[in-house]
Amino acid sequence: MRKKPRILNRETVARSRLFHIEALDLEFSNGATARYERLRGSSRRTVLIVPLLDADTVLLVREYAAGTERYELGLPKGRVEPDEPLLEAANRELMEEAGYGARRLEQITSLTLAPGFLGHSTCIILARDLYPQRLPGDEPEVPEVVPWRMDRIGQLWRDGECSEARTIASLFIAREHMDCG
Amino acid sequence: MRKKPRILNRETVARSRLFHIEALDLEFSNGATARYERLRGSSRRTVLIVPLLDADTVLLVREYAAGTERYELGLPKGRVEPDEPLLEAANRELMEEAGYGARRLEQITSLTLAPGFLGHSTCIILARDLYPQRLPGDEPEVPEVVPWRMDRIGQLWRDGECSEARTIASLFIAREHMDCG
Repeated sequence: MRKKPRILNRETVARSRLFHIEALDLEFSNGATARYERLRGSSRRTVLIVPLLDADTVLLVREYAAGTERYELGLPKGRVEPDEPLLEAANRELMEEAGYGARRLEQITSLTLAPGFLGHSTCIILARDLYPQRLPGDEPEVPEVVPWRMDRIGQLWRDGECSEARTIASLFIAREHMDCG
Repeated sequence: MRKKPRILNRETVARSRLFHIEALDLEFSNGATARYERLRGSSRRTVLIVPLLDADTVLLVREYAAGTERYELGLPKGRVEPDEPLLEAANRELMEEAGYGARRLEQITSLTLAPGFLGHSTCIILARDLYPQRLPGDEPEVPEVVPWRMDRIGQLWRDGECSEARTIASLFIAREHMDCG
């Protein structure tokens, strides 16, 4: 493994309510130098939940996505409150977004979005043994819940209804995890 | 399908060399209003390439990721130049990052990273019939090329060497695509 580049300098170049953009001056082990920009994530963690209604059916939610300006189908997700245990946060988000709680919650991996310019990482939580339980959320409208067959993951990107890499990767990972465990 | 929210106002709240942060005031069809922040992508498209050396082996590259401050294993990727055809850009990036060209290139889908706050979308290109061909790239160091067996995708996130949702989703999608076609 190569020696990591040395960080010569880091500075904040822009900031908004949610985002914090940082410039990094790096010197690589071969002597080359380069300036990178990256987005500092919030210090709060994010959970993405794979809620299995039964072994063959996952619950997706349809929500408005401001980035792509359309409704997107995806797994429920949300931010962990300060001092909130990870699995409790996952259960709370599941109740708020999908109207279910889970008796069995397990972190299966973590995923990044674009490690080259985002520090952000999402904890992927498998949720099983579900029961109906709704908590009021902070969304401007209640998400629509869409049960989806696990053997139809391919249809998600073929139909174009779900474009999110994190959702698609997590569904495949959950399927492999269950096949192996 | 619900009626999309109305965009009441949009404004730039911060900007750097690479990033452009926009605030959006939305009114949902139920009357609720909310302010969202999102990152405007560059107008340039991005390609991510799944280069198959043979039916069982994909080429990954190991590169320094400034967002997570570590070397990450992932699929080769890069930005499409203005007026550059998509598949030509994919082939150029493949030559620059992995030292191979492809005689057969095909777009299989597009993926977003976090549609809630990023407009950005990546075109996923399957590359087959490879031949050795290197082009000099603009990276500060030449990426290390790592052949990886397609039946060991699961090892990527279990080992923690590859955390990127886009790479993992694309490998599974390519595998399904080949099984179906």
